[in-house]
Amino acid sequence: YPGSFGAPPPAQDPMWGYFTAIAGQDGEVDAEELQRCLTQSGFSGTYTPFSLETCRIMIAMLDRDMTGKMGFNEFKELFMALNGWKQNFMTYDQDRSGTVEPHEMQQAIGAMGYRVSPQALNAIVKRYSKGGRIFFDDYVACCVKLRALTDSFKRRDTVQQGSIMLQYDDFILCTMAI
Amino acid sequence: YPGSFGAPPPAQDPMWGYFTAIAGQDGEVDAEELQRCLTQSGFSGTYTPFSLETCRIMIAMLDRDMTGKMGFNEFKELFMALNGWKQNFMTYDQDRSGTVEPHEMQQAIGAMGYRVSPQALNAIVKRYSKGGRIFFDDYVACCVKLRALTDSFKRRDTVQQGSIMLQYDDFILCTMAI
Ligand SMILES: [Ca+2]
Ligand SMILES: [Ca+2]
Ligand SMILES: [Ca+2]
Repeated sequence: YPGSFGAPPPAQDPMWGYFTAIAGQDGEVDAEELQRCLTQSGFSGTYTPFSLETCRIMIAMLDRDMTGKMGFNEFKELFMALNGWKQNFMTYDQDRSGTVEPHEMQQAIGAMGYRVSPQALNAIVKRYSKGGRIFFDDYVACCVKLRALTDSFKRRDTVQQGSIMLQYDDFILCTMAI
Repeated sequence: YPGSFGAPPPAQDPMWGYFTAIAGQDGEVDAEELQRCLTQSGFSGTYTPFSLETCRIMIAMLDRDMTGKMGFNEFKELFMALNGWKQNFMTYDQDRSGTVEPHEMQQAIGAMGYRVSPQALNAIVKRYSKGGRIFFDDYVACCVKLRALTDSFKRRDTVQQGSIMLQYDDFILCTMAI
């Protein structure tokens, strides 16, 4: 199709109708709409539904223009990522208790390709634990945050040196919204 | 008193008994204990009690040794900060609706002495809004995060230049835990 650059126009995408129904009048999905959609679609299965806080983090991850809302492409991108994390979580949660162990989460983060020190891994896992275990909602919130922060870092680390120069305002901008 | 450096020993501090009752066996306060204590003490008044998520952020702000728990001095420091933010919030929430307006929150952040760009201010306020307004719980979560991130930045900006060099691992460590 001319002008489509290989991607089908939204109207032909099977998810387009679903998206527009959720997005409503403004044509974009905010945190409350996302929470409703994830709850009603039964995405979490037997796991506790996502908190509004986690949904806000999900949107912040993809929300480059900082409107607090997601367009169609971000919406699809989010669902792909969520499916991956859910698969991953279920691999570790073999007894379907709804939680994984700290060492399993550390393994999972490593398996996703993040190179973080044992100290950072430890701090992360502690932050997202409740009573020494990690619930699905917190697991996803952690994955979202880690991905968003790593993306922010990489965008600034143009020469791929593993370290960046950050101004205070930029630091606040890329960390406070997540 | 010898060895006291001017501060009364904990046993003579009026808050010590309160702290030990909340801390329990391990002598430190974790997020769940903090939430229970803030709810039972009626700290939020007519406002919605703090979510567990906000309590975790509060502990992360002060938790330099990353144990996920607070000792006595941190506990007192937190209460001082909380009182300040509550006063501040109530000044803006004159009709006691439990929420403040985005522009009021922007003003409040400026009044606390943070020097952030209009773009960052905007992103922050959007992130902590629900339906275009900011609730007390989210207001406090935002203040805690902003303070913790600013402290982290300042500790690394030893020459006070307003910009720092950050390694990936350090970046993750100082942002993921909050
Ligand atoms: Ca919408
Ligand atoms: Ca399990
Ligand atoms: Ca305790």
